[in-house]
Amino acid sequence: MERTPASDTGLIDTIELKLSQRDLAAASAALVPMPDHQIVRVLDRLSPRQCAIVYRLLPKQRALEVFEALEPELQGELVRGLQDAEVATLFAEMDPDDRVWLLDELPASVAPQLLRGLPARERELTAAVLGYPQDSIGRRMSPEYIATHPQLTVAETMTRLRSRIDEAETIYTLPVTDAARTVIGVVSLRDLLTADDADTIDALMNDAHTVVADADAETAARECTDLGLLAVPVVDSEERLVGIFTIDDAARILKREESEDAARQGGVEPLGRPYLSTPVRKLVRSRIVWLFVLAIGATLTVQVLSVFEATLAQMTVLALFVPLLIGTGGNTGNQAATTVTRALALGEVRPRDLLKVLSRELRVGVSLGVLLGLLGFVITWVVFDWHIGLVIGCTLLAICTVAATIGGIMPIVARMIKVDPAVFSNPFITTFVDATGLVIYFLVAKAILGI
Amino acid sequence: MERTPASDTGLIDTIELKLSQRDLAAASAALVPMPDHQIVRVLDRLSPRQCAIVYRLLPKQRALEVFEALEPELQGELVRGLQDAEVATLFAEMDPDDRVWLLDELPASVAPQLLRGLPARERELTAAVLGYPQDSIGRRMSPEYIATHPQLTVAETMTRLRSRIDEAETIYTLPVTDAARTVIGVVSLRDLLTADDADTIDALMNDAHTVVADADAETAARECTDLGLLAVPVVDSEERLVGIFTIDDAARILKREESEDAARQGGVEPLGRPYLSTPVRKLVRSRIVWLFVLAIGATLTVQVLSVFEATLAQMTVLALFVPLLIGTGGNTGNQAATTVTRALALGEVRPRDLLKVLSRELRVGVSLGVLLGLLGFVITWVVFDWHIGLVIGCTLLAICTVAATIGGIMPIVARMIKVDPAVFSNPFITTFVDATGLVIYFLVAKAILGI
Repeated sequence: MERTPASDTGLIDTIELKLSQRDLAAASAALVPMPDHQIVRVLDRLSPRQCAIVYRLLPKQRALEVFEALEPELQGELVRGLQDAEVATLFAEMDPDDRVWLLDELPASVAPQLLRGLPARERELTAAVLGYPQDSIGRRMSPEYIATHPQLTVAETMTRLRSRIDEAETIYTLPVTDAARTVIGVVSLRDLLTADDADTIDALMNDAHTVVADADAETAARECTDLGLLAVPVVDSEERLVGIFTIDDAARILKREESEDAARQGGVEPLGRPYLSTPVRKLVRSRIVWLFVLAIGATLTVQVLSVFEATLAQMTVLALFVPLLIGTGGNTGNQAATTVTRALALGEVRPRDLLKVLSRELRVGVSLGVLLGLLGFVITWVVFDWHIGLVIGCTLLAICTVAATIGGIMPIVARMIKVDPAVFSNPFITTFVDATGLVIYFLVAKAILGI
Repeated sequence: MERTPASDTGLIDTIELKLSQRDLAAASAALVPMPDHQIVRVLDRLSPRQCAIVYRLLPKQRALEVFEALEPELQGELVRGLQDAEVATLFAEMDPDDRVWLLDELPASVAPQLLRGLPARERELTAAVLGYPQDSIGRRMSPEYIATHPQLTVAETMTRLRSRIDEAETIYTLPVTDAARTVIGVVSLRDLLTADDADTIDALMNDAHTVVADADAETAARECTDLGLLAVPVVDSEERLVGIFTIDDAARILKREESEDAARQGGVEPLGRPYLSTPVRKLVRSRIVWLFVLAIGATLTVQVLSVFEATLAQMTVLALFVPLLIGTGGNTGNQAATTVTRALALGEVRPRDLLKVLSRELRVGVSLGVLLGLLGFVITWVVFDWHIGLVIGCTLLAICTVAATIGGIMPIVARMIKVDPAVFSNPFITTFVDATGLVIYFLVAKAILGI
């Protein structure tokens, strides 16, 4: 029985050791006592090749359970290594929504063939989910729900529930629909168990929080977890029930979105797979494009500086503060961008709040600028002289104000033009603020020092 | 019935408008048709003062439901505005685990008084949860579970379940315990409903994934959502059942941790409350300390540059590349830090993987450095001359290698010395890499240009 991660590191190490020793017999023996999720954690840490080896060591039934517990990306990689027959079996055993996760990871050409291999009903269910757009909650829902009706009794509903209990995604939240399949409420199994058998559903049901199938998956998942709902009915544009999605899928969607945002804010393309099992060349690929783009952007700073080269030659001391000034500007911009990007992700801020955010960040920027400017003025005065101090102080004030404002509105602008706010994020703002900051710096210097 | 956020923005705007017009009657009228979670979203957007006003407009029962749905920070603020009697009522109505969330937000002095006001049983339950350390899962669990025993039949278990259905945190996952209260498995309500009344639990139960009460709350929450478990039994060091925590609480814990990490990676102290409802002075406070610390750190770059001031005076052209070079170094370091910090948070990387990470990031850094170095060499050669090009190329190679390596291991070192890896993160690495990068730059320049 597994408890904290600490307790299974031992087993994980054993497996990795045996693998490195090419002792497959011992490795497969070590796998036997491991619960599925621990095997998953082992696979998460192995290279694609090793991963395939370990997977093949698993007994058939075990392999199936483990496969279902894997991240779609790893499933996709494994599938490429298996024979068509094996894949067909795995695919048939999966739930429709999990199938779609996997299909999204495979070359489009593979899908039709895999679908053809399915029994008719499974094929229809999967096709229904596949029909919804990428990133929509419809593509993440399960079409296997149990609905009940207002005029049915508790007893009738329980019979209905028992008869379909094996295929249903969840039995703990039942959508209540009218004759037109319109969702008019939900009833929880808890309510059913506390009620009398003769009670009718309309007496028990609560208002339903539903979501439209085309709605953004992340937003829907966020609502589900924020409201602490175990399951949310999914409806079409006519509010007719088409599926249900559960809080565990919501958590899975959010984990993925959080990872993407974290990566992009750091200027990396999301790996979509565990770090240790990612080949180095993939890590390089996930970073190089951003670095190129940002480096090209940074040549802007070279141009700005070359404009002021004469001034620099005249007063080399000005060069000493360049990293400090643009660094502070970058930090201030990142702070604002980070805060607003997160607020957008959580739905606390909407694009229409642009002006509210603008005025707040402007005020924040000025306050930060005044505080840092004073500090900068005093220190520089002491170390150098008060002219330079004045230049640094005024520059810090201006840079902080500009940086906070730009950093605050950039993510919202990104959202408005349908770009992931996290993409438009910290590294870009830094580069942009760097160039702007330099211009401000030298203009202030020329003005104050009269050069 | 609420669907996508879009559909309730209208209502939210109405309320905000009426409030700004001081038309409380209209505002309270607009609140009536709103579902609780929509009212919560309104409160999330208001200043503490307005928030208190709107809250007082709610009818008593409504107010209670809304209060329970609020984030602990907002609960804490509201409570300070209410009379003791009102607070006592609210407090008595809450679940033990929610009470502890709230107490964690209130001054320690308030807790004893509030606890005294509780009925004996509630007080004991809450005290039990309060007994566990901050950030442990014990503090986030519910002590109100329904357990069953291996020798009991399904029918007996169902009777037991029905009798305690109202107080229990969840009825969908039941821990199975032996005479010594040791958890020996779990049985799901789903299994109970599919089984025959005469079946005994030991025939139905599955292995339990449990967590120790002292375990880190984030890790436990991550396991719960990764495994897609609706509930996880919490045990003491002797593996005796002490409580249960549910996936909705896990999602809540993770949301909070994600927000903290996102904030710290951007060099901001977590607000712990929605952006729009946070007073500007609090925003400033959440950022100024970091900016000061980072600015002080950045004075290091001033010192480094002043060491090379003579070289700069001699060749002003070198100054032109400073922002580009340290910017690229900063970006490379951030990429590595972001990736590894996330991997640590997801449990994909453990501190003991330090050497693995070191060697990977070293290889990544060199690859990135070679690619960027070549680009830098060629471009600078064309624009300036090949000597400068060589300096820039070699510097980029060195800086990328150092930055990726440092950025990759810093978060792990942080975790080892029990600091939040996200704190030790991007802004710090940037500052550090800036200074190192400058030293590298001028040493390379002196070597190649022979100055």
